[in-house]
Parts: sequence; C-alpha cells; structure tokens
Amino acid sequence: MTKDPFNPVDTEARALARSLIENARHGALGVLDTGEPVVTRVALAPEETSVLILISDLAPHTAALRARPKASLLIGEPGKGDPLAHPRITLQVEATFLEKTENLAKRYLAHQPKAQLYIGFAAFHRVRLSILSGLLNGGFGKAYKLGASDFSIST
Amino acid sequence: MTKDPFNPVDTEARALARSLIENARHGALGVLDTGEPVVTRVALAPEETSVLILISDLAPHTAALRARPKASLLIGEPGKGDPLAHPRITLQVEATFLEKTENLAKRYLAHQPKAQLYIGFAAFHRVRLSILSGLLNGGFGKAYKLGASDFSIST
Repeated sequence: MTKDPFNPVDTEARALARSLIENARHGALGVLDTGEPVVTRVALAPEETSVLILISDLAPHTAALRARPKASLLIGEPGKGDPLAHPRITLQVEATFLEKTENLAKRYLAHQPKAQLYIGFAAFHRVRLSILSGLLNGGFGKAYKLGASDFSIST
Repeated sequence: MTKDPFNPVDTEARALARSLIENARHGALGVLDTGEPVVTRVALAPEETSVLILISDLAPHTAALRARPKASLLIGEPGKGDPLAHPRITLQVEATFLEKTENLAKRYLAHQPKAQLYIGFAAFHRVRLSILSGLLNGGFGKAYKLGASDFSIST
C-alpha cells in the first residue's frame, strides 16, 4: 500500500497531542538494549516539550538510556471497546540525566506523589525525555506526524 | 549497583505472568524501525506461548516487523496510585505473519469483537508473536526473568 496515511497537522491535532501528554501519568518506554528493542513501563511528569521520568539502576532501561539516549515513548490509555479506537501518541525522545535538584523533585512529585517514598534513593535518577517528533493516532483514519515545534504551547 | 535484582522464578511468578497475558486486550509493541526503537499500541488475543495481533499496512510497525521480526511487548495496565506498583511484563517476541484462515479469525475475534469491522480488509495482517523470554515486574522488589518454557501451561 503506497497511500500516505497521515493527515496534515492542524490546531486540533496539536491540542490532542498536548492533552495526551498533560494527562499522562505513565508511558511505555522503548529503548535499544544490546541491539534489541525493550519496552518497559515508566511513571512520568509532563513538561512543555519533554517529560520527566524517575528511573532506577535496577531496571534495564536505565543502563540502556545511558548507553544510547534515543528512545520511544507511547502515551495514552485506551478505554472501553476497541483498544485501537482510542487516541495515543508515540514520541521519539532523547534522554538527559539531570542533577538532583529540589525544584525538579517538587515538579515530579506534583504528578507522582507516591514517588516520595523513593525519589531520594541513590539508585533513582531523574531523566528528561526531550521530544524530537511524534506519531499521533487519534483513532482509525486520524494519524498525524508531528515535529518538535508542534509540542510548544506557543505554537 | 551490582546487586542482581531478580528473584528465582517460582510457581507464583509463572501464574502472574500467565494471568497478565490472559487478561490482556492490548499491549505496547516495540519494534526496530530504521535503527530506532518505536513503540505503538496493538490490540491482541492471548494464546498459550504467544499472542495474536492484527496489524495494518498503514501502521509503521507492520513494515518494521516484516523487515525484522524480533520485537518487545509490554503487557499489564496500572490501576490507581503509583503506576510502578502494579504488575506488568515485558515479553521479547518473534513475529510470524500468518495465513488468513477462518479459525484464526474466530480466535482473534473472540477477544476483539470490534475488529469484525476490519479483520477482512486486505491491508490487515494476522501476526503471531511467539514468546522468547519475559521480564516480569510484580511491583517493587518483585522482578523475575522468565524463559520461553515458563509460559507453557503444562510447566
């Protein structure tokens, strides 16, 4: 099939992408681990053009992101009926390991209050996933390719 | 941190893995697409040591799986509270594109009745994801590495 399945990006598509990110509490992170894709759950706190995650040395994604910071993050939970009829977005991201500042902890804990129990542990790292591009699927026939600038609030 | 975070696989771990797979209606599929991990949602029907998915030529994962059948599938949905306190499993899988038989369609539709609308379309393909291994995370401190044989019901 050679038909281009993507619609032109418009205000509505950008608003849906923003809403998916702002309402997300977790996502499925795909990293490359010794050549293989590996998908794990991460809890997250949304930012404007990125999301914050808190990851542990005990999880395989942490070493994988240190070795190779480019990754993919699926956000958006299905409701009832056909799981594919519900909107979701695949973000291509680049990870940066951050300093353990008070401000950052506050911002993360505002979205993930239960993480208070372990955010202070030495094995847990705060990582920013900066959005490089996105593949928005709003349901059948509603696919869009978004660039990094489509995620800015001022867009 | 050099501590091995994995517990020895026992009956309880195998039962949790089975229950996650049997109750799953969708998962996050990670494929390798021109060298990058890409995570998308798939609807699924569980089998004993594999899961069936129905994927479209319009979605990027379909061409990616044809080019490179090894992939990763995250299964298990979080409930309330900390998203990381809820059980999930990362399956490493290998994809096989299947013949379009009546039996297979029945089995898939038993789990995904809404797919009746499009399972007959030429652009939709039935694919078996055979389980090669699994990384079970039952919540904090409850991680297990499972081999292919741990997924057999007779185990």
